[in-house]
Amino acid sequence: MKAKIHVTLKNGVLDPQGKAVGHALRALGFDQFGEVRQGKYIEIDINDMTENAARHYAEAMCDKLLANTVIEDFDVEIEP
Amino acid sequence: MKAKIHVTLKNGVLDPQGKAVGHALRALGFDQFGEVRQGKYIEIDINDMTENAARHYAEAMCDKLLANTVIEDFDVEIEP
Repeated sequence: MKAKIHVTLKNGVLDPQGKAVGHALRALGFDQFGEVRQGKYIEIDINDMTENAARHYAEAMCDKLLANTVIEDFDVEIEP
Repeated sequence: MKAKIHVTLKNGVLDPQGKAVGHALRALGFDQFGEVRQGKYIEIDINDMTENAARHYAEAMCDKLLANTVIEDFDVEIEP
């Protein structure tokens, strides 16, 4: 099965990458939008586990490596 | 409303960032997984548009700036 993981900056944490994307979009003539926030999206193929075990496994990966939980939130979806 | 955009490498395109994440996970003792692919996740607040117009607007942003459509696919979801 596949774990689909989103890692995003917590609300209130400054997002310079999102700001840069916003500026670049305005420079291209897009102006009908407000805030831009950029995060990471990670897909991991997980072997031979129940859906619940795979979710815990992916959450452990986020805690240990994929997300900096001081400034980032993560969200794990499991696709069977 | 909010556009939620996923930008991922096309199948078959080498993903060194995903490979590096996979190596780091194995070094931490995780071994029950196969391939890791990493992409970008972008949230954009879009002003005063119908859902359909917002989707086209976000797709235009992807075509012009957010995705390199030679090697990347994008997917736009609109959250009202």
